[in-house]
Amino acid sequence: MKKGTISYEFGVNVHRIRTEVMDLTQEKLAELSGLSSVYIGEIERGMRNVSLEIAEKIADGLSIDLCELIKYDRPNQEDDE
Amino acid sequence: MKKGTISYEFGVNVHRIRTEVMDLTQEKLAELSGLSSVYIGEIERGMRNVSLEIAEKIADGLSIDLCELIKYDRPNQEDDE
Repeated sequence: MKKGTISYEFGVNVHRIRTEVMDLTQEKLAELSGLSSVYIGEIERGMRNVSLEIAEKIADGLSIDLCELIKYDRPNQEDDE
Repeated sequence: MKKGTISYEFGVNVHRIRTEVMDLTQEKLAELSGLSSVYIGEIERGMRNVSLEIAEKIADGLSIDLCELIKYDRPNQEDDE
């Protein structure tokens, strides 16, 4: 996934909140969200275009509103042209 | 997708906003979001577990913040037991 895409930035947000806010290991977040720690790692590295259902499971695991995880500074539309 | 799941409720929100707020046809939303109208119809009927990238395209097509489309009244966790 490219930097500045929602999937990539979702991963960045998950990593930031997991480490800086919740101080959880990937294993603990995996347990809390019912996913594998390998999958959590891939998501955090922007390798996965997650579904809404998976994104919600991770938000629940982090005890945070999903909206917080999908917010990011979107590249200006003109930048893409 | 089951009622009360994020994918189902996302579809309900898309349908409501497309018809009641934006007054768009499925064909027009398909054009605005770069998706097929068949796919839009399936999403609105809760048949698709959409990815964040697709969800964002639809939000852009509706000129709305994706957070607005993923909000819904979540069934109480106890209700599930």
